[in-house]
Amino acid sequence: MSKIVYVTRRERFNAAHRLYNPAWDDAKNAEMFGKCANVNWHGHNYDLFVTVRGVPAPDTGFCIDLKVLSDMIKDLVIEKLDHRNLNLDVDFMTGILASTENLAIAIWEQLEAPINANGCSLHSIKLYETENNFVEYFGGK
Amino acid sequence: MSKIVYVTRRERFNAAHRLYNPAWDDAKNAEMFGKCANVNWHGHNYDLFVTVRGVPAPDTGFCIDLKVLSDMIKDLVIEKLDHRNLNLDVDFMTGILASTENLAIAIWEQLEAPINANGCSLHSIKLYETENNFVEYFGGK
Amino acid sequence: MSKIVYVTRRERFNAAHRLYNPAWDDAKNAEMFGKCANVNWHGHNYDLFVTVRGVPAPDTGFCIDLKVLSDMIKDLVIEKLDHRNLNLDVDFMTGILASTENLAIAIWEQLEAPINANGCSLHSIKLYETENNFVEYFGGK
Amino acid sequence: MSKIVYVTRRERFNAAHRLYNPAWDDAKNAEMFGKCANVNWHGHNYDLFVTVRGVPAPDTGFCIDLKVLSDMIKDLVIEKLDHRNLNLDVDFMTGILASTENLAIAIWEQLEAPINANGCSLHSIKLYETENNFVEYFGGK
Amino acid sequence: MSKIVYVTRRERFNAAHRLYNPAWDDAKNAEMFGKCANVNWHGHNYDLFVTVRGVPAPDTGFCIDLKVLSDMIKDLVIEKLDHRNLNLDVDFMTGILASTENLAIAIWEQLEAPINANGCSLHSIKLYETENNFVEYFGGK
Amino acid sequence: MSKIVYVTRRERFNAAHRLYNPAWDDAKNAEMFGKCANVNWHGHNYDLFVTVRGVPAPDTGFCIDLKVLSDMIKDLVIEKLDHRNLNLDVDFMTGILASTENLAIAIWEQLEAPINANGCSLHSIKLYETENNFVEYFGGK
Repeated sequence: MSKIVYVTRRERFNAAHRLYNPAWDDAKNAEMFGKCANVNWHGHNYDLFVTVRGVPAPDTGFCIDLKVLSDMIKDLVIEKLDHRNLNLDVDFMTGILASTENLAIAIWEQLEAPINANGCSLHSIKLYETENNFVEYFGGK
Repeated sequence: MSKIVYVTRRERFNAAHRLYNPAWDDAKNAEMFGKCANVNWHGHNYDLFVTVRGVPAPDTGFCIDLKVLSDMIKDLVIEKLDHRNLNLDVDFMTGILASTENLAIAIWEQLEAPINANGCSLHSIKLYETENNFVEYFGGK
Repeated sequence: MSKIVYVTRRERFNAAHRLYNPAWDDAKNAEMFGKCANVNWHGHNYDLFVTVRGVPAPDTGFCIDLKVLSDMIKDLVIEKLDHRNLNLDVDFMTGILASTENLAIAIWEQLEAPINANGCSLHSIKLYETENNFVEYFGGK
Repeated sequence: MSKIVYVTRRERFNAAHRLYNPAWDDAKNAEMFGKCANVNWHGHNYDLFVTVRGVPAPDTGFCIDLKVLSDMIKDLVIEKLDHRNLNLDVDFMTGILASTENLAIAIWEQLEAPINANGCSLHSIKLYETENNFVEYFGGK
Repeated sequence: MSKIVYVTRRERFNAAHRLYNPAWDDAKNAEMFGKCANVNWHGHNYDLFVTVRGVPAPDTGFCIDLKVLSDMIKDLVIEKLDHRNLNLDVDFMTGILASTENLAIAIWEQLEAPINANGCSLHSIKLYETENNFVEYFGGK
Repeated sequence: MSKIVYVTRRERFNAAHRLYNPAWDDAKNAEMFGKCANVNWHGHNYDLFVTVRGVPAPDTGFCIDLKVLSDMIKDLVIEKLDHRNLNLDVDFMTGILASTENLAIAIWEQLEAPINANGCSLHSIKLYETENNFVEYFGGK
C-alpha cells in the first residue's frame, strides 16, 4: 500500500498592488474597493504555502526534495513577485484583477505542470495577505 | 470551468467560561473537568477562523468582500462573545456546555445561513482556545 | 571581567478577571472600563516572560538552571493564577485592581526574593494580555 | 444527526538527526542530502499537531479529553523523541530513514490504535521541522 | 516610591514604498538599493509597537487607557500610513527617504507630544518591516 | 543632534548539541543536565536576532545596509553553526560548554569587530533555543 504524504514549503514575497477594475471609473473603484483602490498603491508581506502530495521514495524518504521544490517556487513565482507591483510588473498577472484569490489561482497555474513533472502532484496554494486574511486554492475543486 | 477558492477571515475575542455539567454535583464536575471547572471561572483569548467557499467574481476578484464577511462575523458572533462569560452572557450558548467543540458548532449555526445568503458557502469554523488546543467544524461532516 | 547574560523563561496561564474599582458604582465602572468591567467577567490567555540577569557559571554554562527557574515561576505564580479568577482567587492580588500593569508588579513581588536568593537577579517581568497589549516591569525603575 | 468535530493538540520535541541512507557511501549521502547528511548530526525543534475526529459527548462536550490525548501523545511519542537522536535512540524509527515524512508516518502508527480505542479516530499528523517546512499524514490516503 | 511600568500597544498598517534618493539617477538608486528601488514600488505589512512609560494610577490601574493610546496612534499615524504610498501620500514623510529607520523616527515625532500630554511619556517605537527586519527608536538616545 | 536607531536582523540555524562538562563523569553530567546531556545528542532550531546601533545616513536612510549585515552574520556565524554539531564542528565553540548563554557570548565575539568596522556598533545578541527559552547578551554589561 502506498502511503501518501502532503509536504508544504513556505516562501515569502513583498509586493505593491491595488484593487482596480479598469471597466470602472475611479469613483466606482473607490466605492467598491475602499482604501484598497488607492491610486498610489499599497502593499503587503505575502506568505505563500505550497503543498505537494506524494509517496516518500524508499531511498531518500522524500516526496520531493525540498531544495528542488523551493527552487521551483523561487524561480517561477517569487522571482517575479518579490519587490514588484502586482498590477504592473508581473507577466502572469497581466489583465487580471490583483485580488488574493486571483493571485493564488495564478500561482497555482505557474507551478502545477512543473511540480507534477517531478513525480508528485501540486495539492494546494495557501496565500496570506495579512495575519487576518488568507485564501486557499486546490486547483478549482 | 468554475474555480473554487477558500477564503478565511480571522477574528478574535476574549471570554470567561467554565466547564460545568449542571446534572453533576461540584465534586463530579471537578473530577471530570479538573481546574477547568473552577467555580469562579477562568478565561481565554480565542482565535476564530471562518472559511468560506466560492468562485471569485469577475468584476471584483472576490469570493466575498472581506469587509462584509468581517462585519457579519463581528455582528453575529464577536459582539456576543467578546468580553463576555460564555456560560452566562451568550444567548446562543444557553443550556450548552461551554467546551470549545460546542462553541465552534454554535458559531457555525450563527453564521451558516447569513453567509450562504451572500452567494458563497460557509466551509469551516476553526477555533483556538490556546496555542496548543484548537477545534475545526465543517458542518458536522 | 564578568560577562552578564539575560535569560528569559516564558510561562503561560489562562485566567478570568474584570476591571473594577470598588470605590465606584457600576455605572462609573462601566464608563471608565467599558466592556472590561463586565460583571460576569471575561478572560485571557496570558503570556509571562521572566528575565533574570547573571553571569554563566563555568561548570554549567548557566546563569540559572531553567528547570529551577521554571519551577519557581510555576510554584509561586502560575499555580496561583492559572484557571483562576484574578479578582477572587489570588492571594497576592487581594485588594488590587486587576489591570495588566498591577498584575505584572504583583508577579515581580512574588518572584524577586526567591530568584535573587539563587545567585542571579530578577531583571524584568513582561506580561502579554493579548497579542496587541503587553506591559513590562523592571522593579519600578 | 451526529456532529463531527476535529480536535487538535500540539506537542513539541527537540531532537537530533541526520539524513543518511546506509546503502550509500558518505559521498553519495552528501551529494543527495547536502548539509542534512552532516556526520556529526544537526537538530530541530519539532512541532507536532495531532488531530482526532469525533462527536462531542453530551455530558462533557468533548470529542476526547485533551488531558487524555496529551498524555497519550507524551507517553507514546514525545517521551521517545524528545532530547533524543532520531537515528539512534528511537525504537519505532529503527531502520527508517529519518525524514520528516517518515517520522510523521511512524508517529501515526504509534498513535492510531490507542487513540481509536478511546472512542474517536486519529485524523491527521502534522509535523513542522522548521517554520518553512512541514508535512501532513492522513493514514496514507 | 513610584512604580514605573512600560505599556505597549501594537497597531498594523499596509503600505507601498520604494527606497529612492532623488539626488541620484536611477542607475545609482538601483545600485545602492537593489530591488528595493523598483520604480513601480513594492510594499509591506508593517507592525508598529508603541511603548509608553508611566506609573499606574491608583483608581484605574492604568499608566494610560489603552483605548486612548490606540486611538491616538490610529488618528495620528495609522490613518495616514495604512493603504498608502509612503513616498507620495504621507504628509509627515514628505522629503524623507522612506527607510524603516526614518519612518520610525517620523512616527515618534508624530506621537511624542500628544502622548506626553496624557501624563505618561513615549518610550520607544518598534517597527517591523518583515519578520526578519525591525528597528527601534528611543527618541534618539 | 544625531538620532540613534537600533536595527535588528533575524537569522536562523538548526544544530545538534548536548550539555556536557568533560570534568565530570557521565553520571554527574546526567544529574546536572538531565535529558540535555543525552550522549547521542539532541538539537534545536535556533533563532538569532542581531541588533546594531547607529545613526541613519542622510543619503540612504540606513544605519547599516541590511544586506551587508545579513551577509556578515551568515558568513561569520550561520555558515559555521547551521546543520552542525555545536560541541564538535564549530571552531569558535571549541572547549566551551554549549549552553545558550555561552553560544550567545561566542556569537557576539565573532560579530563585534566586523560590525563595528562598518560604522555602527553591535548592541545585542538575542538567541532563542525554544519558544520558551531565550538569552540576551549586550557585550557583558
